[in-house]
Amino acid sequence: MASKAIEHEESLFDGLHAPRARELAIAGVECFAAKGFYGTTTRDIAGRVGLSPAAVYVHFPSKADLLYTITKAGHEDALAALTAAEGQEGTPGQRLEGMVFSFATWHARNHRLAKVVQYEQDALPVERRNELSTIRRRFRKPIEAVIHEGVENGEFAVPDISGAALAILSLCIDVARWYSPSGGRSPEDVGRLYADLMYRMVRNSP
Amino acid sequence: MASKAIEHEESLFDGLHAPRARELAIAGVECFAAKGFYGTTTRDIAGRVGLSPAAVYVHFPSKADLLYTITKAGHEDALAALTAAEGQEGTPGQRLEGMVFSFATWHARNHRLAKVVQYEQDALPVERRNELSTIRRRFRKPIEAVIHEGVENGEFAVPDISGAALAILSLCIDVARWYSPSGGRSPEDVGRLYADLMYRMVRNSP
Repeated sequence: MASKAIEHEESLFDGLHAPRARELAIAGVECFAAKGFYGTTTRDIAGRVGLSPAAVYVHFPSKADLLYTITKAGHEDALAALTAAEGQEGTPGQRLEGMVFSFATWHARNHRLAKVVQYEQDALPVERRNELSTIRRRFRKPIEAVIHEGVENGEFAVPDISGAALAILSLCIDVARWYSPSGGRSPEDVGRLYADLMYRMVRNSP
Repeated sequence: MASKAIEHEESLFDGLHAPRARELAIAGVECFAAKGFYGTTTRDIAGRVGLSPAAVYVHFPSKADLLYTITKAGHEDALAALTAAEGQEGTPGQRLEGMVFSFATWHARNHRLAKVVQYEQDALPVERRNELSTIRRRFRKPIEAVIHEGVENGEFAVPDISGAALAILSLCIDVARWYSPSGGRSPEDVGRLYADLMYRMVRNSP
């Protein structure tokens, strides 16, 4: 599982043309996940791939820019996992289960990256945080839309749709905090568990 | 609401006899919540209450000891919120709702403290982390017990009790990440929303 995550992180940074920049971004994920943004020096990051601290500045104007690159790629990849599931066929219940499965599994499989994405963004300058908020608002929309649809056709009964969507996203995101590959549940186990629980939470039960 | 949280933090550190130690612990919560353990210096903490860095070492052997004091008090206070609700009268459904209300409300009201408790503990030495794990294992028990009881008496239908308990605790803990007093929901609103959603998730629906 670990190697699958690392392979994924490599493809995640395909937008960075220089192979060195991709290596530094992957090293940045590892360092920021372990010691946080403020606890990590450019020396730590560069050292992990056998380079001098100056090498970081060849590819990123600052440590904060490297964090932004990581965080933005992480946001976009998590959103892609959610929206790919949104496009599937099925009832609102089946589509909600698909989205929860995909989003929860993403957070388990990429738990180190997701930790950086979720817990380090406060270290970014305000205009960068605002850009990320714009992406983050798009997470809520597909979840709210499918709940609406299920309420309309009677499959769901949900008194507070935005509250339920908040809970569903929050539950999936928190997987990054507690998930460990040694904990006995695979990323897909977590995805299936949460898909079932969230379906139960919103279904219409007379 | 902010002043209520600060009052609570003051009483939280009543176990520290020296008033200066209590002030430093409260300053520590603020600094660690804002910049993380590694991003905070003893100078930052002491400066917040008008003392010199050396003052920290009068009361705490190290910055990590101060973090441990904060984190342990936070764990115990959150556990007390949960177990106080466990002792209430009522059906398993009513008691589960009470526990979720209490635990989620605690994480909203004490969101800065809870952030430090949840996201900074990796900075502690392993033996300290193990002590905290012992406390943390006790969070799971009252939730699992009440779900068991509800399954036994037919009020709940839950295929994976430990998975449902994991989800319930995780949902409440993640409130610390996203909660903001300016976000339009009070801590009690969040508590009520989550109590209702978690009841819906586990109820037996024929």
